[in-house]
This record gives sequence, C-alpha cells and structure tokens, in this order.
Amino acid sequence: MRTVTIVGTGLMGTSVALALRRHGVRVHLLDCDAEAAETAAEMGAGVVGSPSGAADLVILAVPPRSIAPVLAAQQALGAGRVYTDVGSVKGWPLVSAGALGCDLSRYVGGHPIAGSERSGPRAASGTLFRDKPWVLTRHPGNDDASVAAVTELIRLCGARPVAMTQAAHDRALARTSHVPHLVSAILAATLDGADRELLALCGAGITDATRIAAGDSALWTDILQANACEVAAALADVAADLTKASQALVTGSADLTELLRRGNAGRSALLAARPRPGT
Amino acid sequence: MRTVTIVGTGLMGTSVALALRRHGVRVHLLDCDAEAAETAAEMGAGVVGSPSGAADLVILAVPPRSIAPVLAAQQALGAGRVYTDVGSVKGWPLVSAGALGCDLSRYVGGHPIAGSERSGPRAASGTLFRDKPWVLTRHPGNDDASVAAVTELIRLCGARPVAMTQAAHDRALARTSHVPHLVSAILAATLDGADRELLALCGAGITDATRIAAGDSALWTDILQANACEVAAALADVAADLTKASQALVTGSADLTELLRRGNAGRSALLAARPRPGT
Repeated sequence: MRTVTIVGTGLMGTSVALALRRHGVRVHLLDCDAEAAETAAEMGAGVVGSPSGAADLVILAVPPRSIAPVLAAQQALGAGRVYTDVGSVKGWPLVSAGALGCDLSRYVGGHPIAGSERSGPRAASGTLFRDKPWVLTRHPGNDDASVAAVTELIRLCGARPVAMTQAAHDRALARTSHVPHLVSAILAATLDGADRELLALCGAGITDATRIAAGDSALWTDILQANACEVAAALADVAADLTKASQALVTGSADLTELLRRGNAGRSALLAARPRPGT
Repeated sequence: MRTVTIVGTGLMGTSVALALRRHGVRVHLLDCDAEAAETAAEMGAGVVGSPSGAADLVILAVPPRSIAPVLAAQQALGAGRVYTDVGSVKGWPLVSAGALGCDLSRYVGGHPIAGSERSGPRAASGTLFRDKPWVLTRHPGNDDASVAAVTELIRLCGARPVAMTQAAHDRALARTSHVPHLVSAILAATLDGADRELLALCGAGITDATRIAAGDSALWTDILQANACEVAAALADVAADLTKASQALVTGSADLTELLRRGNAGRSALLAARPRPGT
C-alpha cells in the first residue's frame, strides 16, 4: 500500500491519515469543506487533492448515509483499486451502494471501534486506533485482494481486525454505541435550560454519563437513521426497563433492586471483556 | 470540634473520618458490620466504639431510609450535641425523624456531592470532598450553633457549603444524580447476558456511560425509593424524550436532530458550570 486517498478529513479520516503517514504511505486528502482538508494537511496528514492515477485504497470517512453516493462518485472517476469506509453502520451503505450500481467486489466495509465526542481534524490522533477492534464486514462478492488491502490498512493503524457480518455488526453497535449515545443525549438534554443552582450539583456520575452527548448532532442523526431498525428495537428494551423502574418506584416492588443488579452484572460483563483493565 | 462519632463506615463515612483525622479530630466509628468498622479503623479513620461522653457531632453515614431510625436511636443514647448526615435525599429523613420524635433543632441535613461507584471503607479517601459542593439543608427549627458545627465539618473536609431547602435539593438531585444512575443501570442491564462478540465491541462511550451502574444496588434502591416522587417525575421527562426519539427514528423527522442538539446544549451547560475544566 503506497498511495491512499481519504475522503472526509474529520476526526476519523484525519486520524487514519496520521496513522498511515507514520508508515510512509502517501496520503491524499479530500473534503467538501476545503478548510477541513487544509487543516488536516497542516497537521501532517497528507496532501490536499487527488493523486494523478488510481490510489491503492480509497477510504470513505463520511457519515453512513453518504458512503454509497461518495463511493459511486469515486468509482466513476476510477479513483482507487480498492474501497473501504469507517462508518458506524454497515448494512445500509452496502445495500445503497448496490442500488447505485457500484462495483461491490472491491468495496469492503470497515468500522474501527474508536472515536471521541470531539469532531473535526483538530481532534484527530494517529494513535486513536491502537489496540482497538476494527470490524471488517466482508461480503460474499468481495475478492480476496480487496480484503487483504483493508486488512493491511487495519494493521498499519495498529488495530485488530474483527470479522463480522453487516447484520451482526449493526445489531451489536445499536446496543454498544448507538442507543448509549441516544440515551446519553436524552440525559444531557434534561440539563438544557437548567438553572445554575442545579448545574452546580452535577458530580462525576452525570458528567461521565453525558460525555458522548457532546457528539456532532448531524453526524449522529445520520448514524441513528442509517441503523434505525436495530436502534429502535434496542431502544424498546430500554423503554420497557424505564417503565418497569417507574412502576417499581411507585409500588416499592423489588423489581427496582433486580434492575439495578442486572445493571451491576452488565457493567461487570463489560469490564471483564476489556482486553486491559482501566483502559 | 474535638470529638466526632461516625455511624456507618462505608465509602462516605470512612472518607469523612479520614478527612477529619487529618485535622486531629478524635473520630469514633460505629457500624452494624463490625468488619467494616475494623477495616476503617485499620486505615487510620479512628477508633471503633462510642466515646465515653457525648460527641461534639454525630455524623450518620447510612442509607437515606435508615437516617431517621438511627438518629432516633443515637439521640435516645445522648450520643452527641449535634447531628448531621451525608445522605443523597434530604426530605424523607427530616420528615421521618420528626415522625419518630427526634429533636430536630440539633439535626442539620447535609449532602456532599462526591462519591464513587465503588463502595465500602476500602474505597474511601480523605480527599474525596476537596473543592466539592456540600449541600446544607438547614430547616427553620435548627439552632445556629448546630448549623455552625456542620459548617465547620464541611470546611474541615475541604468542601464548599451550599445552602438549599430539602425540596430544592431533592428535586435537583433527582435530575443530577438519581435519574442518571437509574438510566446508567438500565443501559448497563442491556449488556447482562450479552455474548462476548458484542461485549468486545464496547468502546469508551458505553464504558463511561455505564460507570456508575456498578454502584451498590441495595444502597441505590434505598436512595431512589426515598426520593421516589421526584425521581418518577424526572424519569417521565426522560421517557417522553425516549418515545419521541423512537418515533423520529421511524418517521425520519427532524425531532431526532433537535433532541441531539438539546443534548449538546445540556452537556455544554454542565461543562460551563464546572469550577475547573477537566476535573
């Protein structure tokens, strides 16, 4: 992998670019926001503009619902030999790309499990993906060379490739990321317009629980809508527990303790599954 | 303040004890769990057992619904000149103490806005309250000397006294602490029984959002039930936004972006109200 084009120089695209630059890969940066691309270039992420020939890999670092149209446009230009993306939803882009007549054999979906509540190139880091899982959603039409190229990208970024189907990814991410984001936003929204006396009483608990609520609202609308079916299903489970909790508060039933214990168990399971404690 | 008795040597009681010991206050430790009291004493928090005479201050570091019965028992023994507590709910203990015939003039409710998802004396720290708000819920029947004694306690712990009514405190804490705890537990509960593939995809977002879900389920049941009315009211707002989000996912309405923007605004308000950024 010698030449890579990155479309979208926000947090994710610029972080990938910075990681690749450390390995001497030539990185070309494109963004509909010229200032974002210039900022990324100034940070050492690569050069602004397309390469003269086809890149070895084109990475689409755009919101999920923009992946298919951008893929179609890049393929029409013959921009790359292989294409991937870093979006948080995997089914919708693939289905949409098929509908738009893209060459799917050379498009392998990817999703690094790393991010930040901050956005834009200035929040980027070349070490963002180090030791993190990076889901690879190979589909039956993919050729091996394309999968190998994206696997090389993942290794160059210091991440661990994790193979999954699009459906399994989207179902899992609804629960591990999309619903937590929405719930965090709803919690944070309760503070919108709150008086200073109340805000002064916010401790570490609510501060941690609402950190991700700072995420870009346009990007997150796109993510949630692109995975609407799975998010709505997972949200229904949350709503059912919320109703149960409200009723238990009124009736004083033991359901409340049972719910808190399930929360303890879920938290323990999360911590037990982490590769290194405290990270 | 020369002699203090602390009833309840969990995280909060032991942390107060350690802070007071730094100022040379004689601290007496009582707990229905003898091992917890011994552990606290071994950590340098004080000596196990009651003082020979009345303590200058008796601090009740027990769950909210135990405060009134423990206050009644301690006052019947003539254990102290002044009484306070560190509970996360302030209305219920005061009303209950009145019903149990306690001398309310010398009981001043308090609540330090600090804590941990860990519990027990080993999680305690003498610096837990440093620069943190500590709500003081004086009531009309309090005498000035009692309020002065509790204010001295707050200053010895390095915290900032914040005067509030019981009602304002309980209404605010339902929103800043109790509902966030319950929502965090509900989020964490979605991971109970999840398979390893899904758990391996949990990133920093859900990890932060579920940190407080590790809190002691018996203690938190007590807190939530003691403030059930305010918690249920605040939870209804969360449930309404959850319903709105589910509907917006299905209809694709702009309500979803609007909700995420309110989350952005609430998060900004929280950060703006913090005395020092990043702490």
